[in-house]
Amino acid sequence: MNTHGILIVVSGFSGSGKGTIMKELLKRYDNYALSISATTRAPREGETDGREYFFKTREEFEKMIAKEELIEYAEYVNNYYGTPRAYVEEQLTAGKDVILEIEIQGALKVKKKFPDTLLLFVTPPSAEELRKRLIGRGTETMEVIEQRMQRAIEESDGMESYDYYVINDDLDTCVDEVHRIIQAEHNRSTRNHAFADKIKRDLKGE
Amino acid sequence: MNTHGILIVVSGFSGSGKGTIMKELLKRYDNYALSISATTRAPREGETDGREYFFKTREEFEKMIAKEELIEYAEYVNNYYGTPRAYVEEQLTAGKDVILEIEIQGALKVKKKFPDTLLLFVTPPSAEELRKRLIGRGTETMEVIEQRMQRAIEESDGMESYDYYVINDDLDTCVDEVHRIIQAEHNRSTRNHAFADKIKRDLKGE
Repeated sequence: MNTHGILIVVSGFSGSGKGTIMKELLKRYDNYALSISATTRAPREGETDGREYFFKTREEFEKMIAKEELIEYAEYVNNYYGTPRAYVEEQLTAGKDVILEIEIQGALKVKKKFPDTLLLFVTPPSAEELRKRLIGRGTETMEVIEQRMQRAIEESDGMESYDYYVINDDLDTCVDEVHRIIQAEHNRSTRNHAFADKIKRDLKGE
Repeated sequence: MNTHGILIVVSGFSGSGKGTIMKELLKRYDNYALSISATTRAPREGETDGREYFFKTREEFEKMIAKEELIEYAEYVNNYYGTPRAYVEEQLTAGKDVILEIEIQGALKVKKKFPDTLLLFVTPPSAEELRKRLIGRGTETMEVIEQRMQRAIEESDGMESYDYYVINDDLDTCVDEVHRIIQAEHNRSTRNHAFADKIKRDLKGE
């Protein structure tokens, strides 16, 4: 079967726990690589260049854009965030399944450039559960909660663009499901044209 | 997630071992049901009505056709073979993933009627391996072997219509892969419109 890695975008509601799922997935299985974003924002305490982010100056980042060294990028609150192409391509060629944890706008850009990208959407089991998680421990103002709910509504609008939904109810089950989905995708006929072509040619003795 | 069963068609080269895989799958997991075909051919020794086949008279079978009680049917060597609809629908509603083991023509008919059908194609790892299996223990005439190879070429022509390829190299691995593929499909966004719609409505407080 297909031994080339699969590019995977994982998105989901804020509060869906997707970060925790990805960390656990990488801990359990060695066939994954997590893409590290480049950013122009300053490192926060405890953050290391090349671990949380590749920290770049604005000038460096704009050079990367000009040289098409980014798969996708966006600007938030005067800072750039983007996905460096080189690391992703190296890992895919080495047979790793590469995970990007980005939002829907970025996800759609990546899918457009690489139509084989697998899009996963992580969600709590219900809107009620999401609301509970957003309200959190009751320390937030109603205004903050309302902003988060508004954001969740926007995020939910893009759900149909994703290939699979993963419900984060129990972490263990969820990690297993994500792994199962990605590994099953390696068997997709559309990812194995070369295999089918070879078997056909060989059968015909060509 | 989707608790309604998935309809699965399994096809593959003669000699791919798909029958053995399905038997093993049903033995290991209790979420599957194997559809039993109806046929007008006479039962062979050891075959029981309702186990290998539902044995029907030509008249009975043609009544089933007329009443649209078959999902698909075909005639081979003067005998009818078909898939009774009632059993499949009952099992799907009960949440079972229902497996039909039929050939490509039947597979495409089923897919047309039920676009959500999952099509799996079982194949040996290479044409050479398939040839070895077809030649078997050297007891066949060259003519028989040639006929089988010709048939394999025809079967390979339809490979692209299938959703997934499963390579039968090691039985254990193969059964695991089939299970993984089918279970991962339950998370497909296209099979979970109701879930997405509900979460969206609930978020908006509709």
